Parts: sequence; structure tokens; C-alpha cells
Amino acid sequence: MQDPNLTPLSSLGEFGLIDRLTGAYKPSNPSTLKGIGDDAAVLDYPDRKVLISTDLLIEGVHFDLTYYPLKHLGYKAVAVNLSDIYAMNGTPEQITVSLAISSRFSLEAIEEIYSGIYLACQTYGVDLVGGDTTSSRIGLVISVTVVGSAPAGEIVYRSGAKENDLVCVSGDLGAAYAGLLILEREKSVFKADPSMQPELEGLDYLLQRQLKPEPRADIINDLRKAGVQPTAMIDVSDGVASDIRHIAKQSGLGCVIFEDKLPIFQTAYDQLAEMQIDPTTAALNGGEDYELLFTISQADYDKIKDHNDISIIGYMTTREEGYHLISKSGTKVELKAQGWDALKS
Amino acid sequence: MQDPNLTPLSSLGEFGLIDRLTGAYKPSNPSTLKGIGDDAAVLDYPDRKVLISTDLLIEGVHFDLTYYPLKHLGYKAVAVNLSDIYAMNGTPEQITVSLAISSRFSLEAIEEIYSGIYLACQTYGVDLVGGDTTSSRIGLVISVTVVGSAPAGEIVYRSGAKENDLVCVSGDLGAAYAGLLILEREKSVFKADPSMQPELEGLDYLLQRQLKPEPRADIINDLRKAGVQPTAMIDVSDGVASDIRHIAKQSGLGCVIFEDKLPIFQTAYDQLAEMQIDPTTAALNGGEDYELLFTISQADYDKIKDHNDISIIGYMTTREEGYHLISKSGTKVELKAQGWDALKS
Repeated sequence: MQDPNLTPLSSLGEFGLIDRLTGAYKPSNPSTLKGIGDDAAVLDYPDRKVLISTDLLIEGVHFDLTYYPLKHLGYKAVAVNLSDIYAMNGTPEQITVSLAISSRFSLEAIEEIYSGIYLACQTYGVDLVGGDTTSSRIGLVISVTVVGSAPAGEIVYRSGAKENDLVCVSGDLGAAYAGLLILEREKSVFKADPSMQPELEGLDYLLQRQLKPEPRADIINDLRKAGVQPTAMIDVSDGVASDIRHIAKQSGLGCVIFEDKLPIFQTAYDQLAEMQIDPTTAALNGGEDYELLFTISQADYDKIKDHNDISIIGYMTTREEGYHLISKSGTKVELKAQGWDALKS
Repeated sequence: MQDPNLTPLSSLGEFGLIDRLTGAYKPSNPSTLKGIGDDAAVLDYPDRKVLISTDLLIEGVHFDLTYYPLKHLGYKAVAVNLSDIYAMNGTPEQITVSLAISSRFSLEAIEEIYSGIYLACQTYGVDLVGGDTTSSRIGLVISVTVVGSAPAGEIVYRSGAKENDLVCVSGDLGAAYAGLLILEREKSVFKADPSMQPELEGLDYLLQRQLKPEPRADIINDLRKAGVQPTAMIDVSDGVASDIRHIAKQSGLGCVIFEDKLPIFQTAYDQLAEMQIDPTTAALNGGEDYELLFTISQADYDKIKDHNDISIIGYMTTREEGYHLISKSGTKVELKAQGWDALKS
């Protein structure tokens, strides 16, 4: 039924669509210091900058209720938003939560979601300050908006990286994706034979990475204590390959990432290999790690080199050098962002 | 399939659910001056207060794409959010917009939605500063969050009404609901016989009230110019009967509303009567008028009495007197809020 003269969204991808819709738009209020194009917008209020970010979670796209505990879902909906504020080097302070719910949910089910929301609020010192609750005929929808703040000089944009800056990432990569694949596998097994018990022994960490991600407030604090202000930063939601390209593009640079430096948790590596998924591809494109990907000046190297949860995985180059991955065998290949379009469709 | 030990959401209603979910919750950040429970949260930043509010629009619940032009939909999604900031006596400055879209939409369709979003932004001097775009298998979802500000002393809460204050409403009531009924009627006619042309002659105003509501920035400006600061204010989204009860409840008061003072546009009155809907019931419970419902001190009466778009429809009483409607015949009946639960289910 689609008019062939119309552009299918599939030809654009998420970022292409956003570019198309917002590329020509210019904010006009003096208080809008930074609008679309980073993890959060920055609003210029006296003395402090207000940060705001928002995320929409849709049943059947972002979560599958057949294996997603409702409490975890509430927690994650908040956590992924807070992650955006930390990725600006800011402090989240308030959230709003909107829920669309169908009549198949009981009060107790919604309370489970809220218990996760409150737990995340408590854990990260954030206040729930509003929202909207509505009925839905089309499944569960959760929309979270977070407001935070930072002193003006401390905000870290995606655009501040300099040539030769080191590319760093916190924690490990690919485990959330491995967790998702395991949950999908066990769902299939259960569907085929409901008497089967899920095989989840020893996989707690991978499942937790998928079901209950933690934004890295601790890393922000550690960097502050060490006297390191990243030159650019983003949270890893779509996958390092896609996310480092955002930093490179907005900073007018290229980058080199070393495959052998990618931090992959051993259990994730083993599980991915067993499922015949290339662990490097998963680490680069799996997404939903909610780690911090940031660049620092080489002068700051000594201050972070002993941090046992930060890996240096590459460096920034000139724009002309493009985006590259140096494989374990030493081959230089183009670093392709497959994130949203490939793995998750 | 529902467990009989669980509470069905239908037994609570929207506000009951919100109470249940958030009633015991206390914000803890010093910057959270006002959280859940008004049109917008108020965040205490130096010198100015930041206002934030959010709304979620779901296909099949809030809009029907068979008769809802996409551009109007984008406009309305923004307008209803701005209305919440005006209802705090604030100035909206930024919005974020999240969209969930299924593959049945073309780029051009989404651009239509955005053209309405941008038109509303331009009309009301608001900047779009962020959002989230995701796929949906379950219909169109639009989530808008608006941030605004106001000098501390000028914010108007729902809780500030005093006994004997006058109850005022801007514009007229019930027309948006009449517009919705007409659209639904023409949809049924078209379904029964696709060769039928819709009968919409002379009904432009009613359709516009439903499809393209305007938040009342002008009323806020007029009140400011007249030197009137309302004691309490809310925007009419659920219907005056429900919304005045919010003011009364949060102010610890009761209220009296006069049926013959309700401003009902003549065409709306006629159309509602023709469709055998009591115009008073529609004016009180139809909702989606996005007018401002506010209370003022009797001392301010002279300042607004000649405003041709503000009606005085009642006054506040002690809590013990409850909520009442004085009918055209002079009978005193309980003012029942039927809003969300009755008319729209």
C-alpha cells in the first residue's frame, strides 16, 4: 500500500532519520545552549546548566515480557536515562516517567515496575518528579526523561575530542548482548518444550548486564577524583563502533580502535563463541552496555592507567584517516557501525 | 487469565493509580521543590525555577489516524504539554520529543508530524532540544516533555486557592469533545458507505478544538498585564468537573460551580444536543479543552470582569461543603468527575 514515491524509513536508519528531521533546525531561545545532537540537551540557567535527556522503551522492541522481570524493566528504564546524564559529566537529579499500560496488567504488575523505578532513584540519588499514565491497547510503553545539572566548565560534549587523544571505555563490552541472546535462546527452548528448565547456571553476570544495567556514576566520580576531565564522552547504548563514530564525527576526527584491547568478559566471550557469534562483533555492535566511552588527553594517561575498570582501546586521528579497527592479526579494516540496523532488526 | 487476588486497574481509575503508585514517595534532592502532583514539577535552581512536564500520546487511545492529520497530531502533542507549563504561570522554553514508529510510516509521514511539532515550537517560542526515535510494532507513540521556567514568586500551584476565591475559566468548554464525536460519527458513516462525503460544513471551530488545540499563553499574558496572579491554576485536560476537584482537594477546600455560567460555544451546544449529549455534561467532563481553570481573590474581580474570554463559573467553599453544581433550575447537585473513566472508556 506504500506510495513508491515515498521514502521508506528503512533506507535511512535511526540517525539518518534524526538528521533528516532535525538537521536544519536551529534553536532560538538564549537559554538553549545545546539542543539535539548529544546525550542530553544543555539549558543555560544562571550559575548552573540544566541537562535533560529522554528515552522511550516499547514492548516487543526494547523488551520482551516473557523473560523480562517487571522490576528490572523499571530499573533499566531509569538507568539508561541516567547514563545519558553521566555521559555529559553531569549529575542526574530528577526524572519524569510516563507509562502506557493495557488492561492485561494488574496494579501489582505496575507496582513491580515502579519498585524498580524507585530502586534506581534511590541507588542514584534521583527524584521522580512527574509523568503521565495512560491506557494502551498496544502493549507496554515506558518513557523516561531525566534532568540533571553540571557546572558550566565541566560539561563534556561528544565534540571535544582532539587528535591523538586516547579512546577509553569503562567496564566490559558485549555481555549485555550475550545476555540477550541467552534469554532468547531459553525462550525458544521453553516454547518448544515447556517442561524444559532454563540453563542459566553461571550466567548471572550476562543476564544482569542485559536485565539490570548500571550507569557508571562511579567512573564519573573516579575521573573527577583523579583530576581527569574527558575531552569527549558518550554512553555505549548502540555499540562502541557506532558510538565512537559519533565522537569522531562531531569532533571532526577519525579514530583507530584495537581489537585486542576491547574488554570482553570471559564468560561473555565463551558464550558468544559457543553461539557462533564473533565476540569482537558483539563487543563493537551489540550495544546496551551502558558503559562510558570517552577520550582523554595523552597528558592524563598516568592518572587513569592503573584504574582497573577503564581500558584504553584506541586513539583519535585526523578526519582524513577515517574510522579503523586494527585486528588481532594486525590487519587494518574499516570500523563499521552495524548497531541498530543490523543486529537488532 | 487474571489472578483474582490481584487488583484490576479498572477499579482504581487514573488518579487512584497515580496515588497508589506515588502517594508514599518523597523526593529527597534539595533542588526538587515540587515533584508529582501538579501540572509540572518545579526544580529549584539558582535565581529561576525550572518547570518540567511530560505527556504520552498513544495511537488508538489519544488519536485515531483515520481522521487525525499527522501535522495536527504533532502540533497537539506539543500544545498539550505547553499548556501544563502555562498552567503553572510559567514560560515554556524547551521540549523533547520521543517517537515510536512502525514501518508502515514513510519518512514523509513522520516529517508531517514534525512539521506540526515545529509549527507549535515557532508559535510559542519553544525550542526542541532532544528526544528519542525508535521503531514500534504496535502503533504510533509520541512522548513530549517540556521544560520551562518562572520567577519563584510567580509560580501558581493547584494548592493555593482560598475560601471564597472566584473560579474562572478561559475560552469555552465542550467543543473539543463535540469535535471528537463528530469525527467519530463521520468515520462510522464513511465505514458504512465510503461514497459518503463527511458533513463538516460550519463545524470548523469544533474540529479545530479537537484537532489543533491552542494553549492559552495569551490568557497568562493578559492576567500578568492586569496585575492578577491566580491563587491556583490547572489546565482543563480531563474536564472542569475533574480539574476543579484537583484544585479543591489540593487546596483543602470545596467548590460551587454554576451550570448557567459554563461557557459553551453555540455550535457546540447545538451539535451536542443534536447528538443527544447533554451539553453541560460534555462541558464538565468532555475534557481536552486545554483552557485555563483558575481561582482568583475576590479583590481581583474588577481587574478581569471585562475580559471577554474569561468566565467566572463559581467560587471556592470550605472543604466540609463538598463539590457542588447549581443547576439552571437552581437545584444543588453533587459535582461528579466522570472524565477519563466514564466518557472516554
